[in-house]
Amino acid sequence: MSDALFQHPFMSQAALNECNAQAMVSGMLAFELALAEVQEVRGLLPEGVAAQMRQALEGHAFDTTAIGAGVASGGNAAIPFVKQARAALPAELRRHFHLGATSQDVVDSALMLMLKPRLAALDALLRRCRNVALALMKAHETTVMVGRTLMQQALPVTFGVKVAHWGIGLEQARRRLVTLELPVQFGGAVAVHSGLDGPGLDGPGLDGQGSDETDPSGLGLELMDALAQRLELSAPALPWHTDRQPIHALATALDAAAGAAEKLALDVALLTQTEVGEVSEPGGEGMGESSSMPHKRNPVRCALIRGAARQVHGHVSVILNAQAQPLERGLGEWHAEWTPLLDSALLVEGALEQAAVLLEGLEVHPEAMRRNLAATGGSIMAEPVSRLLAPTLGQDAAKRISAEAAETARLQGVAYADALQAHPELQGQVSPEALRQATDPSLYLGSSQAQVRRAAVWLQRE
Amino acid sequence: MSDALFQHPFMSQAALNECNAQAMVSGMLAFELALAEVQEVRGLLPEGVAAQMRQALEGHAFDTTAIGAGVASGGNAAIPFVKQARAALPAELRRHFHLGATSQDVVDSALMLMLKPRLAALDALLRRCRNVALALMKAHETTVMVGRTLMQQALPVTFGVKVAHWGIGLEQARRRLVTLELPVQFGGAVAVHSGLDGPGLDGPGLDGQGSDETDPSGLGLELMDALAQRLELSAPALPWHTDRQPIHALATALDAAAGAAEKLALDVALLTQTEVGEVSEPGGEGMGESSSMPHKRNPVRCALIRGAARQVHGHVSVILNAQAQPLERGLGEWHAEWTPLLDSALLVEGALEQAAVLLEGLEVHPEAMRRNLAATGGSIMAEPVSRLLAPTLGQDAAKRISAEAAETARLQGVAYADALQAHPELQGQVSPEALRQATDPSLYLGSSQAQVRRAAVWLQRE
Amino acid sequence: MSDALFQHPFMSQAALNECNAQAMVSGMLAFELALAEVQEVRGLLPEGVAAQMRQALEGHAFDTTAIGAGVASGGNAAIPFVKQARAALPAELRRHFHLGATSQDVVDSALMLMLKPRLAALDALLRRCRNVALALMKAHETTVMVGRTLMQQALPVTFGVKVAHWGIGLEQARRRLVTLELPVQFGGAVAVHSGLDGPGLDGPGLDGQGSDETDPSGLGLELMDALAQRLELSAPALPWHTDRQPIHALATALDAAAGAAEKLALDVALLTQTEVGEVSEPGGEGMGESSSMPHKRNPVRCALIRGAARQVHGHVSVILNAQAQPLERGLGEWHAEWTPLLDSALLVEGALEQAAVLLEGLEVHPEAMRRNLAATGGSIMAEPVSRLLAPTLGQDAAKRISAEAAETARLQGVAYADALQAHPELQGQVSPEALRQATDPSLYLGSSQAQVRRAAVWLQRE
Amino acid sequence: MSDALFQHPFMSQAALNECNAQAMVSGMLAFELALAEVQEVRGLLPEGVAAQMRQALEGHAFDTTAIGAGVASGGNAAIPFVKQARAALPAELRRHFHLGATSQDVVDSALMLMLKPRLAALDALLRRCRNVALALMKAHETTVMVGRTLMQQALPVTFGVKVAHWGIGLEQARRRLVTLELPVQFGGAVAVHSGLDGPGLDGPGLDGQGSDETDPSGLGLELMDALAQRLELSAPALPWHTDRQPIHALATALDAAAGAAEKLALDVALLTQTEVGEVSEPGGEGMGESSSMPHKRNPVRCALIRGAARQVHGHVSVILNAQAQPLERGLGEWHAEWTPLLDSALLVEGALEQAAVLLEGLEVHPEAMRRNLAATGGSIMAEPVSRLLAPTLGQDAAKRISAEAAETARLQGVAYADALQAHPELQGQVSPEALRQATDPSLYLGSSQAQVRRAAVWLQRE
Repeated sequence: MSDALFQHPFMSQAALNECNAQAMVSGMLAFELALAEVQEVRGLLPEGVAAQMRQALEGHAFDTTAIGAGVASGGNAAIPFVKQARAALPAELRRHFHLGATSQDVVDSALMLMLKPRLAALDALLRRCRNVALALMKAHETTVMVGRTLMQQALPVTFGVKVAHWGIGLEQARRRLVTLELPVQFGGAVAVHSGLDGPGLDGPGLDGQGSDETDPSGLGLELMDALAQRLELSAPALPWHTDRQPIHALATALDAAAGAAEKLALDVALLTQTEVGEVSEPGGEGMGESSSMPHKRNPVRCALIRGAARQVHGHVSVILNAQAQPLERGLGEWHAEWTPLLDSALLVEGALEQAAVLLEGLEVHPEAMRRNLAATGGSIMAEPVSRLLAPTLGQDAAKRISAEAAETARLQGVAYADALQAHPELQGQVSPEALRQATDPSLYLGSSQAQVRRAAVWLQRE
Repeated sequence: MSDALFQHPFMSQAALNECNAQAMVSGMLAFELALAEVQEVRGLLPEGVAAQMRQALEGHAFDTTAIGAGVASGGNAAIPFVKQARAALPAELRRHFHLGATSQDVVDSALMLMLKPRLAALDALLRRCRNVALALMKAHETTVMVGRTLMQQALPVTFGVKVAHWGIGLEQARRRLVTLELPVQFGGAVAVHSGLDGPGLDGPGLDGQGSDETDPSGLGLELMDALAQRLELSAPALPWHTDRQPIHALATALDAAAGAAEKLALDVALLTQTEVGEVSEPGGEGMGESSSMPHKRNPVRCALIRGAARQVHGHVSVILNAQAQPLERGLGEWHAEWTPLLDSALLVEGALEQAAVLLEGLEVHPEAMRRNLAATGGSIMAEPVSRLLAPTLGQDAAKRISAEAAETARLQGVAYADALQAHPELQGQVSPEALRQATDPSLYLGSSQAQVRRAAVWLQRE
Repeated sequence: MSDALFQHPFMSQAALNECNAQAMVSGMLAFELALAEVQEVRGLLPEGVAAQMRQALEGHAFDTTAIGAGVASGGNAAIPFVKQARAALPAELRRHFHLGATSQDVVDSALMLMLKPRLAALDALLRRCRNVALALMKAHETTVMVGRTLMQQALPVTFGVKVAHWGIGLEQARRRLVTLELPVQFGGAVAVHSGLDGPGLDGPGLDGQGSDETDPSGLGLELMDALAQRLELSAPALPWHTDRQPIHALATALDAAAGAAEKLALDVALLTQTEVGEVSEPGGEGMGESSSMPHKRNPVRCALIRGAARQVHGHVSVILNAQAQPLERGLGEWHAEWTPLLDSALLVEGALEQAAVLLEGLEVHPEAMRRNLAATGGSIMAEPVSRLLAPTLGQDAAKRISAEAAETARLQGVAYADALQAHPELQGQVSPEALRQATDPSLYLGSSQAQVRRAAVWLQRE
Repeated sequence: MSDALFQHPFMSQAALNECNAQAMVSGMLAFELALAEVQEVRGLLPEGVAAQMRQALEGHAFDTTAIGAGVASGGNAAIPFVKQARAALPAELRRHFHLGATSQDVVDSALMLMLKPRLAALDALLRRCRNVALALMKAHETTVMVGRTLMQQALPVTFGVKVAHWGIGLEQARRRLVTLELPVQFGGAVAVHSGLDGPGLDGPGLDGQGSDETDPSGLGLELMDALAQRLELSAPALPWHTDRQPIHALATALDAAAGAAEKLALDVALLTQTEVGEVSEPGGEGMGESSSMPHKRNPVRCALIRGAARQVHGHVSVILNAQAQPLERGLGEWHAEWTPLLDSALLVEGALEQAAVLLEGLEVHPEAMRRNLAATGGSIMAEPVSRLLAPTLGQDAAKRISAEAAETARLQGVAYADALQAHPELQGQVSPEALRQATDPSLYLGSSQAQVRRAAVWLQRE
């Protein structure tokens, strides 16, 4: 597919390799085998059946192309998978396979199994970003630069505090991701474990009592809980075939991580503008070259991160709109979730891989930051200067004089402090040292350093 | 505005009344007065100033029309509000007002203050829904109905378990909402509390030491924490002008609640279809009447809930796409959040009000449920029947016979058990009692009852 | 990739086969060769160069895996493609290749070339749907069924008119698609054909005059127009690197087609509900079977169509949000378009393939339609009955009596006309024939037939 | 509502004033009176009835608050409106009012009537933008500036060509808007004009033949066409209650206009950055001031445009997802359209008002453009220089030398031509004049001027 050129470059290659059709088949098989095992433990299957199934199927070469074709006719991957699996089993085991399960049990559970290592990978990437952020924050605790609001120069900040804000955003996203539950799905055809209570789900071999002394109607839920434990997924309150809160929580948490990376990429892209030049993307073989202009180094990682994040937002809007699924099974709503959910995970992982490399190799240019601080002739310091002058000259004169000197500084290319000192109305009124201090951005950093310290504590709190 | 006819009917009227322009002004004022108070406590303002401000402004009639006009020129509500407030203050207090704050501090904090009672109202509505769901679940623990997948009749469930699934969905949404943080915003122009560390933010009256022995650069953060406490908002890790994780968490949690209500409304709408008729929306003065067909009762509450939820999904997609905000202040991204966020809250509250009334007055028709269970001549029970026959007749014959009898039952309008008993190949093979049991939907409910009991425990857990 | 199981089943398999990475490479190559050809025609390249390039490259085996990897470092497929192509050319041709072009020229044009057969396929599918709709409309011009508003039975319609409405929707989408322009992209690095006016773009071989007597600055635009003609794409007003109106028009028109199919699928799904049963999806090997319930036939085509359409809506929301691209080239916005645009086309084509088969094989059950018309005891005819009685009995009595008789009919299972005739207050007041007529849905079809005729004319108008 | 502070500032105030609840009521009334008139013309109502209705209702003060409340119970504005209108009519006219119509007929038609002047206003605004763009393009046909790709300096363009690209985008959006159809809605309860064919829709007064010689079933469509003509709306192929293609076309065309304005605003915002400074937003009373930093002029119009456009994208995603509406009437899908559609129009109009003012008053700074062209020491001209040197020195040496000189120029702050001339390897190799020419951005503008001329022709073509 053209995805190789259009879609996969935004994704984690490692994740792509792990999330292939075979992995989905493995997930479905893991579900079915675990189901047989927990059923056998509870006496619902003859002893040894689960192990025989595992032996017959674990090395079996499933035909994923045929499964794909089966999705287009049956509507999901479980139907053709179950057919292939049954055909690969010895005849006497067939009726024990997929017992009491429905397609959605298999597909939802297998998806959760595929997502589990992805969430772990995202956690690791976000921790990696956090560690780089911590180091960058500290290294640039006193690196002064201009803060910009509505993209206009405003007042000084430090590069350290900017990194701290990125780090807090990324870490919030990480903390949201780690609280997510990946629940097993098991409810049978209509989500009530039909046949798992009554005269026996598997003919005469079943005593029909479920767990010994307790209510037989609880057997399905017991199996569900046991499956969760065996597959190392979480146990949901109830089967969730058409209660898609877990999917919504997953998808929106992925989107938050996309957003945190996107914010970082937007800032870096703005700061790498030729006229700003305060940071550069890390170089690298072939990174950011232009097909026609050899002198350019394009912020390609930023473009890839932003491209990935935007696609995630679209995918997640599908999930938002597919929450309400009719009665006991979606009619397209469920089907619409699969790709948006899985691709969101792969895109976010891709974006975070880029973000980690970007942060790790980010080239910071303090001299450009200083140059830009002076770009307006110092007028970004007009506010503190005016505050210095006000007690002596009155508020109005203070404002006027600080603005006039800034204009002079800009036009004549001199330092703001010098322009102020040369201002006729300030002769003898203010000490040169006071003026120098008031016009020094590095003395007007507010809580920049305290924020870095607070962020360091916050980021290192588990 | 035409909103009165198009938008407000989907919203909570009580919430609309509380979320007017005046409420926003009150929120902005609360922020500014609290700021003065915490500044005074720390010696940044002369004693008594905060109280004088409160006296001058608390009863002041702000001109909200002028503030609205000011948004269109200045870009946010804080700028014209601060102007009006300053003008209303005695001259000597003016320079103490809005000290160290920026527009976004005021607007974000005021929005959080407006949302706080909304989240409380949503919690109350979701608890109300939960209580009704608990009662309905128990009342219908054994009310048998057909479960439907892809909108086709599948196997029996109970109405109780269906309600349990709705309840679990709504309660998950509630638990997500109650974990949300509504953080205060306070960072000043570039989010680093510029001027709150150095030679004093307010001229000579300030000793410049912030908190006594500690780092002066921490003063801004201390004020932020103190503001949070005073306004009963949460204290963020750092100012979050362009770290919009808190907004994303809010908006997506609201969307989850919309989705839980939407799921309920979709199910009710499907169950009220004329041909299904298993539940009815509660009646009510003018509810659901048709302008041309007096015999109809339209599921209007479902339509309003679904209409509201869909609008929320659109609003939230704006928030997803506006996460990445440039440098120290959004340039349209921030501005784009206001209405989608606030309207989402109002729409969800409207949808939940409708959902609560819908659940409380829902008319359940067990006889229609029984009628629909029989609609296919019993073929929904073909699976358990086939399982009953298999040991005796072999799997293939069992399947064939159970299907043939179901077809006979449907065509001749007789009970499935009778059609089976009359089947030539079953003569003398199976006891009538066994057939009656196997064809009785109320004996094939799987975990329906156990799920209701589990859900009841889960829902009542705080 | 797991796409084989999750994404491709929603797409057209034929289209998938045509839209592979190789096709993209072919598109990029077609662009470059056409560029050389039009440049040679205008004397910008030595005679024979274009043919030599074609010979060297047309059979060349490009390494699409390496191109994919190159996207992840360079940011788009053109950069690694151009490198591979240059390496495959004789040394003396290399500097003539990709002359005056930029990556976006190559990628955008190749995408348009890939979409061209897709739009043709969509046109063909929509024409196929139109033809089936025309036949179905006529076949069911007088097939009476109940019309349903807010999913409640309302008044009679015909199945023919329902199909006419589907047909009109699909045909509007088709007409919108056929007006779309697929413009060539050619502007060079900054969209102004840099170097194509002045001292020559290719060293001394170039006379620099572009087209003879005209303004040399027009040469780039001339080449653009010539390229469009040669590639059978349309010529844009100007290069459109960051004017994405053409992409927006494409994507939203695709979404409209998705929506027209989705409407059809929603209706069919609702009409196939077990309790309604008025139509069935066409059967087919393995279509719609359930993994656990052999008696079910699921509306799988509807589910696949609805699943595809929902994904398209998400993709298109990416395009909506990526319209504004900065200055002369997008920084992620452009990159975000590729997959959403291409996948939308593939998903819509998949949905329309399903829709065509669905319409062609749709099983219509007039007897079920008749049964449902009678389901309310005839009360859907209460409005015309009441209108019949009003002149004689007054409006209020007329309404009351028509409702009472409907209730009697429903409870006693008798025909509405009989219940009316038996009503004590109607004795001798109205002729049995008049009552029969007023209660006959097939005599209350309004414009159903005229609409079918009008639609037939409209659909056949080109 | 808080809308006054959060939503309305993004909208056109003039449009807001015209789109109030009263306007919706007027639209609904216009529909009903036109309906009576066309019915009277066809003899379906006694002569004079329509005029009497008009007299009774045209000055009537409808209670819009009660109508709003009625929406929350009945589900749409037509139901309470019809009730109020009937109550305001003389008793004998009541049964003639709203005859054969359904709520959706009234609401959809009234919405189209409200949108009509909005589309006209958008057309006027886009023409106004076009005219300014034409003037700006011509004024700056030779104003050289740097073109930027991925926000990096690339090669020279002119400001004129940039404006041409904006103009083309805006004009494409305008041409799409003017092709839109605003269809009347009229189909009655189930979209087939029930009762308009048979024994008469209005009791004995009706002869039931509709139009004389033709098929009586065509009467409803005739009325629909006549209504369209009278209301100056377009006549649809058929009633479109659940065929929402017209709404989709409208909403997506509005979004395209939003996108064209958003592109302009993004570019202006980037060009007004302090470090770039190539254009300024027009000033204006209170425009763009900061609440804390008096020296700043914020690009507030850009922020408002971008904020509006983003909200439109969210609204339109609601429309995309609401296309498929069930059977003969939406159950929430229709209801979800109202606000997103209307608010999109109001937001786009607001954004275009801002865009027009922005373009009209845009301050262009050619000297800043020149300064930025030199910012890299001229390395943006390295490509043409290298092309000049290649024939003499060979390609590799040419590239190396052009890059070395650019670096020297940047470090020493001298002109690129001088640095080249001073390069040891170029001594005597190239004429100073040739070097001057090759390093002059104003001689390397490609098709910039031709594009402006072509755009001027294209923009002025109707």
